[in-house]
Amino acid sequence: MAKSDVKVLGSWPSPYAMRPRIALNIKSVDYEYVEERVWEGKTELLLQSNPVHKKIPVLIHGDNPICESLNIVQYIDETWSSGPSILPSDPYEGAIARFWAAYLDEKWFPSIKSIAIAQGEDARKAAIAQVEEGLALLEEAFGKCSKGKPFFGGDQIGFLDIAFGSFLGWLRVTEKFNGMKLLSEAKTPALVNWADRFCSDAAVKDVMPDTEKLAEFGKMVIAKIRGAGAEIH
Amino acid sequence: MAKSDVKVLGSWPSPYAMRPRIALNIKSVDYEYVEERVWEGKTELLLQSNPVHKKIPVLIHGDNPICESLNIVQYIDETWSSGPSILPSDPYEGAIARFWAAYLDEKWFPSIKSIAIAQGEDARKAAIAQVEEGLALLEEAFGKCSKGKPFFGGDQIGFLDIAFGSFLGWLRVTEKFNGMKLLSEAKTPALVNWADRFCSDAAVKDVMPDTEKLAEFGKMVIAKIRGAGAEIH
Repeated sequence: MAKSDVKVLGSWPSPYAMRPRIALNIKSVDYEYVEERVWEGKTELLLQSNPVHKKIPVLIHGDNPICESLNIVQYIDETWSSGPSILPSDPYEGAIARFWAAYLDEKWFPSIKSIAIAQGEDARKAAIAQVEEGLALLEEAFGKCSKGKPFFGGDQIGFLDIAFGSFLGWLRVTEKFNGMKLLSEAKTPALVNWADRFCSDAAVKDVMPDTEKLAEFGKMVIAKIRGAGAEIH
Repeated sequence: MAKSDVKVLGSWPSPYAMRPRIALNIKSVDYEYVEERVWEGKTELLLQSNPVHKKIPVLIHGDNPICESLNIVQYIDETWSSGPSILPSDPYEGAIARFWAAYLDEKWFPSIKSIAIAQGEDARKAAIAQVEEGLALLEEAFGKCSKGKPFFGGDQIGFLDIAFGSFLGWLRVTEKFNGMKLLSEAKTPALVNWADRFCSDAAVKDVMPDTEKLAEFGKMVIAKIRGAGAEIH
């Protein structure tokens, strides 16, 4: 597969845009990465490739655009099926991985955003409590999914590792902004070690944004949200 | 598989709860249906089976609970893999089906709800326009997915048929409440015929709620929402 046949339209601070890149790295698929500076305007290529949502990430494979980050990861897993598996082959394990991935996108990460834009100390504390409650659930899920192995997916990074791990950059920024640890040896020992392993994995380390750079970007986004009701993405 | 090994916890007016039942019917899997009257309180079985979201539908297969309707449909497809396929075997067709299914849940059906609870005529008209815009996109998607065959999934009901078709009851109630056709020969001729075929299919017809009964339920729900901020589900 020539490099130009596989393109990812992404944006470096987006957790969602990391997911297709990690999946392609796992599969050892060479791809062209196109950085979209979405907060400055959307390119014609993005608008044509994702006319419904007009959002990154988009995977363009040959002439086919595929949208929605977890959908793209599943597509990559099925298309380059001779590489390491990303989704579990067991239907129940697959259903559990998809369940927690959806929980992360629909419930948990919105709570992380809520911490950033909370109006007042009570709202901020309530959002932190929600994030910590989610992490306790995920610590428990890690035990069940990993069965003593290094990753949710077992010996190697799988679907739920990608879904959760892509948020670690923003989790660290949130810890920094609030002067506290959300992942800790005391409360989430398994996740602390998992996060270190995930971030240093060969498929991840060149895609995970630097925490300081992400924090600078975060400050700008929060200022915009407070000013104009925009959305972290 | 003994009937008691497969249970669906559902609620008759819920479009989401129809999905696992249609999928099990397609696969000719016998199952026990447990009606949860969620608006009167949640049973211990539901709370134990879906402790995170506490929502129907839940599929209980042996000792394993599986939650989230589209996740359940994919689980059913993979578990009873010798029956007719529900998800396309082609990865790109699968990605397209999942894309539109997510669009229906995240964008389109919320617009249907918005029509019901709109404050004022302008808000109601704006919500109707959003629903119609979505239907135009889905009419176009039908052409591409079905390739001249009767269903989004081809010759038989597939993943996107289930995801969209489960909303037809509420679509009809919305038409009735607003004295108008949302699906019409003029604007969405392919979807009009598809909807008839879907509702009369053997896997669907005993699961699709009666429009009059659903309308009565709808009136009660709308009154509650206007009164107390509850949610149609």
